Amino acid sequence: MAQNGILVVVSGFSGAGKGTLVRKLMEKYDNYSLSVSMTTRDKREGETDGEHYFFVDHKKFEQTIANDGLLEYASYCGNYYGTPREYVEKQISEGKDVILEIEVQGALQIKKKFPNTLLLFVTPPSGDELINRLRARNTESEEDILRRIQRADEEVEWIQKYDFLVINDKLDECVDNLHNIIMSAHNAPIRQQELIEKIKKELDQISKGE
Amino acid sequence: MAQNGILVVVSGFSGAGKGTLVRKLMEKYDNYSLSVSMTTRDKREGETDGEHYFFVDHKKFEQTIANDGLLEYASYCGNYYGTPREYVEKQISEGKDVILEIEVQGALQIKKKFPNTLLLFVTPPSGDELINRLRARNTESEEDILRRIQRADEEVEWIQKYDFLVINDKLDECVDNLHNIIMSAHNAPIRQQELIEKIKKELDQISKGE
Repeated sequence: MAQNGILVVVSGFSGAGKGTLVRKLMEKYDNYSLSVSMTTRDKREGETDGEHYFFVDHKKFEQTIANDGLLEYASYCGNYYGTPREYVEKQISEGKDVILEIEVQGALQIKKKFPNTLLLFVTPPSGDELINRLRARNTESEEDILRRIQRADEEVEWIQKYDFLVINDKLDECVDNLHNIIMSAHNAPIRQQELIEKIKKELDQISKGE
Repeated sequence: MAQNGILVVVSGFSGAGKGTLVRKLMEKYDNYSLSVSMTTRDKREGETDGEHYFFVDHKKFEQTIANDGLLEYASYCGNYYGTPREYVEKQISEGKDVILEIEVQGALQIKKKFPNTLLLFVTPPSGDELINRLRARNTESEEDILRRIQRADEEVEWIQKYDFLVINDKLDECVDNLHNIIMSAHNAPIRQQELIEKIKKELDQISKGE
């Protein structure tokens, strides 16, 4: 029986290593597709349009909202971020597990609309390790880093709403762990409705001696 | 950080191959302990007291209930079945994942009392395969087999209450799949409360500049 893919939402603290983790996952296993988000924020150095994000202006973003072209959207630090619908739906129907790296607000919007979405939250093994990683990136000022830590301190309250916590300590182990979690999640009853219905029908027939 | 084990409840249709699956899991991986149930039913040929079940009479069973010595109990076809509490609690506190093979009523009782119990339901890939396996055992009459199929037909409604459906098609693959599901389940937020609390505390301290 051909099985649909899962929409896998990956969130986590800024500095938890989500980007690297997702890139490694895509390189190592071939059952994944990556959803590219749309945003109005400025392009950072080294980012490519259509690869890291679709970079658009506010007008274009609001048109896409109006056309129901986004699965979810949110604003964060004065900019819009959203998930184009069409790509995700096509990949899932072809059996791909679609990875979507978005923040907490968007993740919870998606889970509410599509309850069989898998929500994963990435964290380093400790708060100290988080601040070390933010400093090691060498891209933000100390004020920016403190703001990100304060944001993390708010986000930690939302972890309970996620299906799984992914502890990013050693990268290679974490990639395999993440993959196992996603494979296991295919076996949740909510994602096996067709098989359950099929077995139910067969048992009904045998019970009635058909 | 020393982590507690998980109580893993394995249910499934009579004839789904739960017993073999659990035995293979125990042989292959060393993080598991097997909980032995207590029952008032007669010992079948080839069964050993203390290994397959603790076989007791009705009086002894009811005394154990009265002493709060069971995590759950249920009656099925006129006999009591229950789970002795002490062994399970000790093994979990020592970090073992404890496997408990029980039927649907008992499984749901346990989940209600201990919400971080992991409920797994084992099924063959089809209803036809279930009846083939029951016939191949050559231990029950056709009437017994039909009764078991009718019971399965009732149980299928309860699969939605389980955390994961384990499809027992090829045994060796299924053992590994079962193991991955249990390992992944350790990462559910409900089973990572200590780590979440620790990170929360560290982020609070950093945020406040302590």
